[in-house]
Formats: sequence, structure tokens, C-alpha cells
Amino acid sequence: MLELSDFGRRDDLPGIYRMAFTEADMAARRWLIQRVESLGGRARLDGAGNVIGRFFDREDKPAVVVGSHTDTVNGGGLFDGALGVLAGLECLRVMTEHELTPKYPLELISFADEEGRFGGMFGSQAFTGQLDEEWLDKAATVEGERLADAMRAKGLDHTRALEAVRSSDSLHAFLELHIEQGPVLESAGIPVGLVEGISGIFKWSVRMVGEANHAGTTPMHLRRDAFVGLTNFAHQIPDILEQVGTEVSRLTIGKVDLQPGYAHTVPGLAEFTLVGRDMSLEVLESLARVCGERLEGCARKHNLDLHCQELSWLPPQPCHPEILGVLEKAAYELDIPFLKMISGAGHDTQFLAQVTRAGLLFVPSVGGVSHSPDERTRWEDVEAGANTLLYALLELSEAH
Amino acid sequence: MLELSDFGRRDDLPGIYRMAFTEADMAARRWLIQRVESLGGRARLDGAGNVIGRFFDREDKPAVVVGSHTDTVNGGGLFDGALGVLAGLECLRVMTEHELTPKYPLELISFADEEGRFGGMFGSQAFTGQLDEEWLDKAATVEGERLADAMRAKGLDHTRALEAVRSSDSLHAFLELHIEQGPVLESAGIPVGLVEGISGIFKWSVRMVGEANHAGTTPMHLRRDAFVGLTNFAHQIPDILEQVGTEVSRLTIGKVDLQPGYAHTVPGLAEFTLVGRDMSLEVLESLARVCGERLEGCARKHNLDLHCQELSWLPPQPCHPEILGVLEKAAYELDIPFLKMISGAGHDTQFLAQVTRAGLLFVPSVGGVSHSPDERTRWEDVEAGANTLLYALLELSEAH
Repeated sequence: MLELSDFGRRDDLPGIYRMAFTEADMAARRWLIQRVESLGGRARLDGAGNVIGRFFDREDKPAVVVGSHTDTVNGGGLFDGALGVLAGLECLRVMTEHELTPKYPLELISFADEEGRFGGMFGSQAFTGQLDEEWLDKAATVEGERLADAMRAKGLDHTRALEAVRSSDSLHAFLELHIEQGPVLESAGIPVGLVEGISGIFKWSVRMVGEANHAGTTPMHLRRDAFVGLTNFAHQIPDILEQVGTEVSRLTIGKVDLQPGYAHTVPGLAEFTLVGRDMSLEVLESLARVCGERLEGCARKHNLDLHCQELSWLPPQPCHPEILGVLEKAAYELDIPFLKMISGAGHDTQFLAQVTRAGLLFVPSVGGVSHSPDERTRWEDVEAGANTLLYALLELSEAH
Repeated sequence: MLELSDFGRRDDLPGIYRMAFTEADMAARRWLIQRVESLGGRARLDGAGNVIGRFFDREDKPAVVVGSHTDTVNGGGLFDGALGVLAGLECLRVMTEHELTPKYPLELISFADEEGRFGGMFGSQAFTGQLDEEWLDKAATVEGERLADAMRAKGLDHTRALEAVRSSDSLHAFLELHIEQGPVLESAGIPVGLVEGISGIFKWSVRMVGEANHAGTTPMHLRRDAFVGLTNFAHQIPDILEQVGTEVSRLTIGKVDLQPGYAHTVPGLAEFTLVGRDMSLEVLESLARVCGERLEGCARKHNLDLHCQELSWLPPQPCHPEILGVLEKAAYELDIPFLKMISGAGHDTQFLAQVTRAGLLFVPSVGGVSHSPDERTRWEDVEAGANTLLYALLELSEAH
């Protein structure tokens, strides 16, 4: 863990700087290939830049795949992604050292660009056949650096990402260990979370348009105050959740821009994001519908024009019940307390779940912190998670 | 009016650019001095850059002063300030042409920097003794250009602004005609507003501090969402106004900044302005007290830290009842419909009212628009306002 964390350190700032297809990211991938080979595995970089290490090879059987990602955000922590890859590597070290002979081959994977420097979960999307040539040509960072150029600079050909796709037939199951990146496990005092599914999500950009006026000379009743419209809607969020949400629903306004944005001027424009999440497609659709209705009501009430734009819509992705059962049995046998939960954050697992039986387990994040140099998981929790992962891998690969 | 508006025009942009102590502003002041002299008045630039034209001079009597300002905001309109100066000039033209012999001398004034390039109502503050040397040395534009340098570049010595102060004994009354800069007169269909007073105002900068967390992984009940705290407060504004406000109270949130400001992150910080106004000191104090209490309640409820900073506090300034009576009589005699109202915007009158009997009258702003090239007042309304002004000046100077 600490060895890997040397890739992407900086002298001047805390945190890890191992952004996709930077030199630090590629060096970490080369290091991982060496580690796989030193354990007797066969390692390669696929067309998308995913590191794949294959162990206990048998051509006639589909593989049990374990892994996560080794890229980080700009100034991220030690654990996000890296933990899942290194826990998988450790499981394979234990299995090779004990000279086990699993019935199914195992693969360790580190997916490319999970963090989304070029759009998000690039490696797992390539692996599961979600990409096309047009997307690959257009993909770029927010600053405008093209994926094609970034990959070429590291000796990779971006069009070959299409060759990274794997058939369902070649996959037996997928397991990912990841930090929770939230406060649920820590606040419950439980070391392992078994993920039932990954939330669906909608992201809207909403504009409410009124009229900018002098805040001193314009009486309250003659105003078309766009912020009052937003406030009126935001205040209804608890009520919306009560009406159609569940305990895992989330509605968040994270970004607000008022124009002209002067203390002495009634805001004529409020532009904001609205992000909704739930585990049930039906609930998610209801949340979106009711949010739309309430926004219209607020706009009408305050004499504002309303423009809602859907920026993205991802349906919920359940994990496979068989894999969840295997993980549950593992934790039970190992006497490790666990919580069944959903993931509000996206993970590579959500694409793997579309082509094979996939499972995701969480370990607690201290303070719920992630994407920060302060990101941390207690070592006894890492151990509990890794042991659960090992047990499940043995079970799935039939290595008894 | 159109002649004056040639000073500060630009070829490339609409609107007027006659910002305080720019060449266009100074040229307009020189033009005004010539106009005063051509009517037989005695004109000078005082130490603060105010143009003062004196008519019907009698050393033993205090002056009836009429005027406003000729500086504009960056890209302002034709009417704001200029109308009051030109209407005063027109009244004096009528009086001189009719060879009236008022008992009191008259002065026409164009105050310097009413719009606040260097802080706001500079000329009327100098005229009424509100400034000191320390303020004069420090005063600067938001870009950092010092008042001292700007004045020196036009051949003026900023320290001489202290010499612009006038004793109460030298003043008999003050009258200002100004555009309303709001929608009240237009929506009532009334050409003249008689101002009972200028609102007091408080301006706060408020910070609510919670915790920035991943919006997917952090359940609603474990959040410390600073925007939810702000929303909760903003939603109470109508209730606060109902509890302690009046029909002329205003509470405005015009500027909001959320940090980190990402769609997928619970906002850990909400920083916003709160501006309150009312005509009664007691009501203004109650508004401030109740806003503070409600903010504390919202912060407590949502587990946020709260920091309120008072950026400014100006008490309400009533206009003089005798002057209001004179204006009312004028409108009544001239059969001009009028509305008694308060001014939510600040005007030079508020400083004059501290040293002499002062009155302010408004004419309608089309669409309530001001500080914009689209600023406009219908000519028949200008005529009604100017006639009311003339009548009141004749009355106050005893020119019958």
C-alpha cells in the first residue's frame, strides 16, 4: 500500500496525484504488472490501459475477476481504488503461496480512469463494451486535453480501447472492495458493508428567471426574485422525500449561481444543480417527476420562468444476489459484523454488473472523508474487508 | 438634457460614462458652470468638486438649495441625478427670465461622486461635514485608484474637500428632484412621489459553515448542509416581515456563494448577503434582531456554525415635514396627482436632511429601470415633477 502510494506523491503538497494517463499513473500500472509477475501471474495492459493479471489459468473456464482502480483524483488519498486492487493482490498472494488449485482462473484488474479525468469509469466501460469510436475521439479533460493525445503520449492507441471488451462468457464473477466514502459504516460501528446495489441518479441544471431590480426601491410584492423561487423549492425537499422517497433517497443542491449577484439587487436569475438518487427505478422516476412539478409550482407562484435541463440519467444497478449471498456467508463464517447497504457513489462494479455476476463490499471511511489527503480506513477494518474478500474469492473460484 | 448627455457618451457602447472625477464628469461640471453664468448666476467648484451656482444673492439670508448630481455609474442612463440638476437649472432660468426677486438667495448644486466611485455621496457628505482627513486619504475605487490621485489629476486637492462644509446657518432649505429607480409610481400611474424619508439600512455578510461531503454517500440525516440552513432561513423571510415588518420593509438576499460548489457535493459553506430596510428605526432594529434570532435557530437546527458580520448600518432619515407640506401644497395647487412614499435607495438628500430642512420628490422610472442605458422617464412626468419643484422653490424662497 505504502509502496504504491509513492507513485504520484508531491514534495510541495499533501495527497496523491495519480490522475489517469499521467506518468505517475502509468508508473503505478507498470509496478502492478511486476507485482503480478513476481507472484507467478501473467500480466498485461489491455487496449484501454487496464492492468489485467491472470492467475491459475485454465482456458476452458471463465474467470473470477477481482479489483478496482489505481488512478486518483487530483490530491486524493491512499485508499480510494488502490485498496481494492491491493487487497485483491494480497488475496492472490495468499492463494498462490498456499498452492491452491481453484477450479476457475482468477484475474486481478486495475481499471483505467475510474475517477473521470476523461469522463469517468473509462476502463470498466471499455471492458464491458459501453464505448464507441465517436466517444473515444471526443473524450477530453475539462481543460480540453484529449484522451487520444494523453494515451498517445504514453505509447497507447486510444482506438484500441474497443479491443478491451470482454465477452460475458469469459467472466464467472466480479468482486470489488472499496472504501465507503461516506459516514454510514463508521457511525454504525460496523467494519464491512455488503452493497446491494448502486443508486440510480439524475442530474439537472435548473434556471429560474425573474427580474433583477434595485433591492431598495422594489417593494417585496412587486419583485420577481429568482432566489425566492429557488428557496421555496429547496425548502420542500424534505417534504418531497417524505412523499415519494425512501431512506436511501438523496436530493442535493450543490451549486447555486445568482445573477447579477449584488447585495443591493434582487436576483433576476438563479441557476442551480439538482441531483437525485435512489436504489429503485420507480422511486427515482417519482422523485424526478415530483421535483419537476414542485419546481413548476414555485416558478408559477413567484412569477418566474423555468428551464430544467437533464444533464444525466443513470438507472439504479443492483449487485447480483448470488454474489451478495456469497459475501454474506463469508462475513458470517468469519464472524465479521456487516451491514447491507447501497452505494450512493458510482463504482466500476456498476458496469461489470451488466455483463457478469458482480458484488461490491465496503470498508468504513474515517469521518466519511474521501477525495482528500485525509482519507483513511482503520487497518483492522481493512483486514476485515480483505478477509471477507478472500473468503468470497475462494468460494467463487471453488478453491476449497 | 441631451446637451449634458453628450458628456460621457461612448461610440462603442450604449449608456453614459460620466463617473466621478473622470474627464467626462469634469467636462459636464465645466459646462454646468457656464450655463449658470449664462443665466447671470455666480458659479464655482467647491473643495469637494461640487458645482455651486448662486442666484439672487443676498449675504444676510440663508440659501434655498436645489440640485442633485451629474456623475453616473459606468454605463448609466440619462436621468439618474442629471434630471434633478437640469430641472433645478430650468427653474432658475424661469425665475431669472421673469425677473423675480425672491427673499432668499437660491443655489443650484451638482454634488460630486453621488454614485460612489470612491465610496458614495462624497460631495453631499463634504457639504454637510461628514468627512475627515483620514477618510479622504484612504478613499479609493474598488480597483484601488485613490480619490487623492483622481482629484489631483483634475487639478483638485482632496484635502480641500474639508473646506466644502457649509454651516446650517447658511442654508434655508434643500430640494432634490430624482427619478424613483423603482416601479411604485409607474404601477400606480401617478406622476409625482413626495418622499417622506429615506429608508434606514443594514447590510450583513453571513457565513453558515457545515461539512462538505459526497452527496451520494452521505445520508440526508447525517448531513451538515450549509445551503439547507440558508434555505431554511430564507424561507422564513415573509414570516419575519409579517412578524415585525411594515409594508415598506425589505429583506433581500442578493448574493450567495456555496463552497465547494459542486453538483455532487453537499455544500459545506454558504456565504451570503442580507440587506434589510425600513423607514422606522424601531422596525429596522426589530428586523435585525429577529433575523439574527432566526439565523441562529436555523444554524442550530442544521448543526451549522454561524458568523454574522455587520457591513453597514444607516438609520432612517426622515425628510422635513415642513418641506413635505410645501411640496404637497405645490402638487395640490398644480392639480398634479401625487403619492407619499419612502425612498428605498440612498440620495444626497439624506445628508442634507441632517443640517437643513430637506425634501425629495420622485418622478416615475419606466419599468422601474435605472443604472442602465434603458433608464427612462416620460416627458409629461418630467414636466409634472419640474413644475412641482418650481412651485416649491418659489414658495420656499418667498418669490411671490
